[in-house]
Parts: sequence; C-alpha cells; structure tokens
Amino acid sequence: MKNIQKKLKEMAYKYIKEKIIFCELVPGSVIQENEIANELSISRTPVREALLELEKEGYVNIVPRQATTVPKVSLKDINEIIQIRNIIEVQCLKLIETPLAEEIKEKLREFKTIFQNYININKENNYKEFLQNDLEFHVYLVSLLGNSQLTNFCRELLYKSLRFWYLMIVGVERRISESSTEHVKIIDFLLENNIDKAAKALEEHILVSKESMLIINE
Amino acid sequence: MKNIQKKLKEMAYKYIKEKIIFCELVPGSVIQENEIANELSISRTPVREALLELEKEGYVNIVPRQATTVPKVSLKDINEIIQIRNIIEVQCLKLIETPLAEEIKEKLREFKTIFQNYININKENNYKEFLQNDLEFHVYLVSLLGNSQLTNFCRELLYKSLRFWYLMIVGVERRISESSTEHVKIIDFLLENNIDKAAKALEEHILVSKESMLIINE
Repeated sequence: MKNIQKKLKEMAYKYIKEKIIFCELVPGSVIQENEIANELSISRTPVREALLELEKEGYVNIVPRQATTVPKVSLKDINEIIQIRNIIEVQCLKLIETPLAEEIKEKLREFKTIFQNYININKENNYKEFLQNDLEFHVYLVSLLGNSQLTNFCRELLYKSLRFWYLMIVGVERRISESSTEHVKIIDFLLENNIDKAAKALEEHILVSKESMLIINE
Repeated sequence: MKNIQKKLKEMAYKYIKEKIIFCELVPGSVIQENEIANELSISRTPVREALLELEKEGYVNIVPRQATTVPKVSLKDINEIIQIRNIIEVQCLKLIETPLAEEIKEKLREFKTIFQNYININKENNYKEFLQNDLEFHVYLVSLLGNSQLTNFCRELLYKSLRFWYLMIVGVERRISESSTEHVKIIDFLLENNIDKAAKALEEHILVSKESMLIINE
C-alpha cells in the first residue's frame, strides 16, 4: 500500500515538474490540485505531497489556504543564475587538464554533430529536445572536472532554469541556431586543446544568453 | 494534531543533525531510531520522518530493513569540498567591488575582534562556538557578492562539512589559533581594499585547512 502511494506521488511530481519546466504552467500561474488529480485520475493526497516536495526545491510557491503558484521569473533570478554559471562553468573549464583524453574528444564530437544539426533547422519547434541537449552539454563540461558535488549542483541549477531558457527560445527562435553555433565553437577550441579560448567562448555564450533573456523580460 | 507531529519531527531533525555535525554521532556510526526516540521522549514515527529528511540532504544513509548510518568521511568528499570552496569563495571575493562600503568594513572589524580572541586561547574547547563563527565568516564573504542562490549553496555546503572541520580541530587543536590568524590576515587585506591579496590569502587558508584534514584522515 505504502509503495503505491509513493509511486502515485512520484508520478504527480514528474508530471507537474515537466509542466513547469516546459511552461505549460507559465510563471505566475496558479496550480489547481484537483485539476492535476483529475488529469492523472488519482486522488488529491499524492498531488499535495508532490507539491510539497516541489516547494522545497523551489519549483512552486505554496501559501496555505490560499494558492499554489509557479514562481515568476525575476530579473534577480536570471542575473544570479548567469553569475553562478559564469563563476562555476568557466572556472571548471579552466581547470581541465589538457591534452584532453580521446574518450572526451569522442563525446565532444558527438555533441558537435548534435548541435550542427540545429544550426540550419528553423522553426522546427524541437524546443524540448534542444534544451535537453543544451543542458546535457553544459553539465558534461562541468563533469569533466570530476567533482560530483559540483556537477550535481550545476545540473540542479540548470534544470531549474530550463523554464527561463524555454521562454527565451520560444520568444527568440533564432537562439537555437545561434546557441548551437556557439556550442560548436566551444567544442572546436576544446578539440584543439585550447582551453583559454574555449573558456572565453563559453563566457561569451553565457553572456549572449543573458542578453536574450533580458529581451524576453522587457 | 498535524501541527504537533510536524513540530516533533522538526525537533528530532534538529537534534539528530546537531549530533551528526558535532560528531556525537561519529562518521560511520549506526543511528538507533528507538534510542533517539527515548532520549527525546517521543514516538519513533517523527524520528523516522526526520531521518528521511536528513537522508535527502545527505546527512545519513538509510538501508531499509538494515541500518541507518552516518556517512563516513571520504578523501573524495574532502577534496571535492575544498575544490568547490576554492572555485566559489575565491572567485566571489575577486568579484567584490572596492573600495568596500563602511558598513562592510564595520562587520569585518567585528569578525576581526572575534578571531583575535581565539588566537591566544588554547585548549579552551570552544569548538562549537569557533566553528559557528568560522562558518559565518566564510558565508559572509560569499554574501558580499549579493547572489542569494550562491550564498545559500555555500552555506549548505559549509554546514554539511562542519563535522569534518570539527574532527579536524579536535585532532589538531592548534588549528583554531592558526585558522583565526589566517582569518585576521584576510580581513586586514580587505580593510585595505586589497582584494587580490585577500583572495590569495583565502586560497592559502583553504589549502592549509585541507592539509590539516588530510592528516586527520591518515
């Protein structure tokens, strides 16, 4: 019995989280427990438990006896996340030992192929897929340092900001192509073992993303 | 009724966490639910709930139907934490704008007085108090950047590693005095608005801590 309850809660958790990340539940919107319960054909208890879990992780705001909402995107949040990425991602890249191992280069070439395919695709609306690849690429770069605690923190941070990026690429569609070009540039410098230039290109890439985010927010 | 359960759980949570951080429950030891429940004169349910919460935060390991233990301190953990502190704390300090505002200087002078008092105190066994001040000082330095998400991450990371520092200063008692001298040095450079030297002193301080930790681990 307990196991079933746990599974229902996990199902609701994943369902709501995905709706938030891909902005079916847009920032600022109200989440109705009973609607979610109906959509999943389950009772409200596991939905409520899932929401409590999501609140702890910062995905929803709960005001008891009033409403459960998706937090708005604030300029402060965006600036903070960009600053953290600039500190952590760029520093991590600078600390990577060169020459890169062949298996790392192999993985980077795989990413390169993926992103090259996005450069010329327009309005394909592969937003979700692109964002997953985007996230995996950035987490992979951090993971090269071999620090699992730092990698986990970055994965969580990037995962939590996916909904911002989602809004951005829906609003500024050319960002998929631009961003992919920037990724390929970073990869090429890494394949040449030129860490300094790769780090600089990563820094620029993060800053350009920020500017696109700010356009959306206007 | 629900409120009482929540409060009992929170009480158990704080009680166990403190025992772990200050090594009354040493790394590797087994936690007995019923012992904790007896010590607090409460039932086992809130204790179990508190342990589940602590597991999520990495403070305990639970193997269902076997044992709940305090994670051992691994060399990998220590190295990862030191690396993260080096990346984040040092980079944050470098990004602080100078000249420092008068209120920041005032706060730094307060910290200076606190740490000066530890330099000549020997074997006073003020371990807990010292570690709290130590943690607050490092979190304060990060907080000067004004990035609340980064400050929270650092606070959690440092809080989680308090038990390592505790073992260190109990094992290498002179670290309280040494560490305080190093803190004063960092503060003095900051008061002179010499960020570069402060960042270098902070980097050295973190590395010396690491070496002391490794002695303990031998």
